[in-house]
Amino acid sequence: MVQKVWYSYDDIHRVVQEIAEKIKQSGIQYEAIIAIGGGGFIPARMLRTFLGEFLGTLSIYAVSTKYYDSDFQGKAGNEIQKIQWLDSTPTDLNSKKVLVVDEVDDSRVTMEFVLTELQKDGFNDLGVAVIHNKRKPKKGKLPENIAYFSGLEIGDWWINYPWDALDIDEHNQNAMK
Amino acid sequence: MVQKVWYSYDDIHRVVQEIAEKIKQSGIQYEAIIAIGGGGFIPARMLRTFLGEFLGTLSIYAVSTKYYDSDFQGKAGNEIQKIQWLDSTPTDLNSKKVLVVDEVDDSRVTMEFVLTELQKDGFNDLGVAVIHNKRKPKKGKLPENIAYFSGLEIGDWWINYPWDALDIDEHNQNAMK
Repeated sequence: MVQKVWYSYDDIHRVVQEIAEKIKQSGIQYEAIIAIGGGGFIPARMLRTFLGEFLGTLSIYAVSTKYYDSDFQGKAGNEIQKIQWLDSTPTDLNSKKVLVVDEVDDSRVTMEFVLTELQKDGFNDLGVAVIHNKRKPKKGKLPENIAYFSGLEIGDWWINYPWDALDIDEHNQNAMK
Repeated sequence: MVQKVWYSYDDIHRVVQEIAEKIKQSGIQYEAIIAIGGGGFIPARMLRTFLGEFLGTLSIYAVSTKYYDSDFQGKAGNEIQKIQWLDSTPTDLNSKKVLVVDEVDDSRVTMEFVLTELQKDGFNDLGVAVIHNKRKPKKGKLPENIAYFSGLEIGDWWINYPWDALDIDEHNQNAMK
């Protein structure tokens, strides 16, 4: 049986506040945020509020990836591909201190992919912030020299986020338990 | 005195659910979402959950704009510019039915800018969804043939969204009033 956990929006908001406190204590002065869509959009927007207290208002950029099942020419398995990436508008973004935000660090495959691709794009001062880090063997690896911030360290549980709830009252009742 | 209103996360979640119901009743089968950052990130992510019930899981793309004060060569005033736009990854996105999402339709300047730029990019089947539409004279205009969905029609009030709250308990107390 997989253990399931539920978090209310207010729970998540408070966890993000704690992430901001950890970032503040690190002394790293991030200059922009990159949200990994769709899961990173909500924590990134919350985080901007709290980081704004000591870093000013940061722009949030977005990238999105998607898994797809590839069985092309016998190469079966899960592959990851870009859905949206940075366009050419922010020409000097890769010279800045940039914080990459997602909801959960699970297998770490998405995180490795995004960070590695950003490093190829010339980013060399990256940090990562996630609401939850699942303590489990990771398929993906963090590249070197990446600052890492997680709100909560948890087991390999099934996380029910409020933004996936079709019935928010039922969801909140589960989160209260 | 400007009237102020506060909404809890759960309030917003329920309003987004109502927007999804209106979209369902319109019969328009959107194929992708474009969130206007940073305000559109949270409602877009919530909306994907509810739209997923009848449209399947939609990809969320993101664009961001920023106002800046231009006094270049005497042209003073507020100007709007792109912070991030669509890159070349989603090559056929402009041929799809796409829903553009933001938190509030206030002066409508950002909305006009984004929709007009997307139409220049070849998008010709666009809809708009906002949590709140302020009933007020609009500086910006909606281009023609844009489907429009708002969760709540309100006065020209100061809206306090939960994602801007430094103290979520105090915010929720205000939202309860």
